[in-house]
Amino acid sequence: MKDATLKQIATQLGVSITTVSKALKGYPDVSQKTKNAVIDLAKKLNYTPNSFAVNLRTKESKTIGLIVPTVDYNFFSKVFEGVLEEAEKRKYLVIILRSNEKLEVEKKQIELLLNKRVDGILMSLSNETGDFDHINNIIAHKTPLVLFDKIAKLVNCSKVMINDRKAAYDAVTYLIQKGHKKIAHFRGSYMPQNSIDRFLGYNKALEDNNIPYDSNLVYLCDNNTDFEDGYNNAQKVVVDHPDLDAIFAITDLVAVGAIKYLNDIGIQIPKQIAVFGFCNSFMSEIITPKLTTIDQPGFEIGKRAASILFDEIELIRNNVAFEFQLVELETGIIERGSA
Amino acid sequence: MKDATLKQIATQLGVSITTVSKALKGYPDVSQKTKNAVIDLAKKLNYTPNSFAVNLRTKESKTIGLIVPTVDYNFFSKVFEGVLEEAEKRKYLVIILRSNEKLEVEKKQIELLLNKRVDGILMSLSNETGDFDHINNIIAHKTPLVLFDKIAKLVNCSKVMINDRKAAYDAVTYLIQKGHKKIAHFRGSYMPQNSIDRFLGYNKALEDNNIPYDSNLVYLCDNNTDFEDGYNNAQKVVVDHPDLDAIFAITDLVAVGAIKYLNDIGIQIPKQIAVFGFCNSFMSEIITPKLTTIDQPGFEIGKRAASILFDEIELIRNNVAFEFQLVELETGIIERGSA
Repeated sequence: MKDATLKQIATQLGVSITTVSKALKGYPDVSQKTKNAVIDLAKKLNYTPNSFAVNLRTKESKTIGLIVPTVDYNFFSKVFEGVLEEAEKRKYLVIILRSNEKLEVEKKQIELLLNKRVDGILMSLSNETGDFDHINNIIAHKTPLVLFDKIAKLVNCSKVMINDRKAAYDAVTYLIQKGHKKIAHFRGSYMPQNSIDRFLGYNKALEDNNIPYDSNLVYLCDNNTDFEDGYNNAQKVVVDHPDLDAIFAITDLVAVGAIKYLNDIGIQIPKQIAVFGFCNSFMSEIITPKLTTIDQPGFEIGKRAASILFDEIELIRNNVAFEFQLVELETGIIERGSA
Repeated sequence: MKDATLKQIATQLGVSITTVSKALKGYPDVSQKTKNAVIDLAKKLNYTPNSFAVNLRTKESKTIGLIVPTVDYNFFSKVFEGVLEEAEKRKYLVIILRSNEKLEVEKKQIELLLNKRVDGILMSLSNETGDFDHINNIIAHKTPLVLFDKIAKLVNCSKVMINDRKAAYDAVTYLIQKGHKKIAHFRGSYMPQNSIDRFLGYNKALEDNNIPYDSNLVYLCDNNTDFEDGYNNAQKVVVDHPDLDAIFAITDLVAVGAIKYLNDIGIQIPKQIAVFGFCNSFMSEIITPKLTTIDQPGFEIGKRAASILFDEIELIRNNVAFEFQLVELETGIIERGSA
């Protein structure tokens, strides 16, 4: 049907199908006069942008790139499953690259994907990413881009995230309502927006509950918010603050590290010290005690980000105008034994 | 330098550089006489296979496909890290697809990758894969293939695996040496070679220790050897065999499910029932009690399989003969609290 219409345009204008196809694609070797004639007739015949897509299909690679900071066993694995599920549905292939939380690697990976002429890029920024020239370069290449989780507010593209500040605020408010007053925060590094926002949420919850902020209660996780970070910081915090009654950790992995250390030295959780995580990863259910945490919808984040990217790839191909989307997915508190 | 040599061959033979290039690639539109002359002179000028590669480089996609049965948070995530590390080193991109343990999906994924003309394919078979026509089709397409973990003995290609039978034998022998006599096995499904081999290892260890095999002690994990499988089978086995003293689970995830149930009903591990896993995943360290398990080197398997694949891609491109490799990586017992 669509091919028939393409042929119809060609026949009516007395030009070849190739010329019609080229005119619709905006090729420079077709005169502006012919282009205008083709476009006018296409409109008249209700030759919709969607059917243009069919003819442009040969230009697409049906492949996208996904850059993640790390391949972990928790959040990014879930994101990955969501991306793959959507990609399978929409018949796209996914090239996965890691930045290893390094800005230089991230730049290189973007270059590789642009050289590969992928149809679009999904990415979550590394902890080192503080300037965004390389990200803006993706946009300059007219390659559709969707950022998720660790996003840059200054980059003009669609973004899928959670409200990290609100989620952290809810977590710390929950701890305060349970009677905890001396709450440490094991925070992420200083660059990523989600790490900043979780810290700000912690801060605001204290403020709104008239608990003075004490910077000595904030411990940096400098090893990519790893299990070791939680373990080591727990070791420090119990010495520094013997009257501590709760820990709000930036990720489940950090929380699990903390629980491991507290278990090792015989501190009762949550009776002596409560521990609150962030992610709701599989391990939060199998550790003893089970981890109270924020439900961060990794699968949904991946699926949604991929879906928006595929839509934008197709809209751009069809020359349909669209606006970037800022999607904020819901989070909730998963109450378990640790807080 | 290499281009100079190519030009040199062309000049000496009085043919175009394109003809020389085509002759070296074996294109059909160059006569056999010219091909022979080019190849003879190339040899004479020490035009090595390696420098042929430079000229063939435009034909390569520098992209491989990786098909895994599932994206899990344990074994395949580790494999994936190993593959990516090697790919980064060798400057290849990796397209990841899942078969979801389904034969039909696996066939479709292979087709996608062959259509995409990837340079090679790494794969671990789905639990349903019992005939191998689609796998042999990869070989028929002259696309290098390396199988890992869930391999097919009948497919003629390089393979990277562990000795599942021996590892399982070692695990069960360990349990017997600790005094356990009534040992259940939570086994994987009937198709994958690794599931069969782990069962056979269990069987042989009993036999060598004069413990009669009892088929009632073997429980099938029919849900992709999941956490639920372990939980549900533990629920059954304690009712069926009140005198049970050990469980050998096909994977850590199954073992963790079993530990979860045993903990829930207050059975002491390992005092009343010992639990032995298989993988040495991250969760085996954080569960209470910590899991005694087989160290299955997922990262190393991924890295090695990728390395062999990249070698074969380059050897084939350079027309260098090679033999398929059957690599068996070492496993060991990780002694922890559960057995």
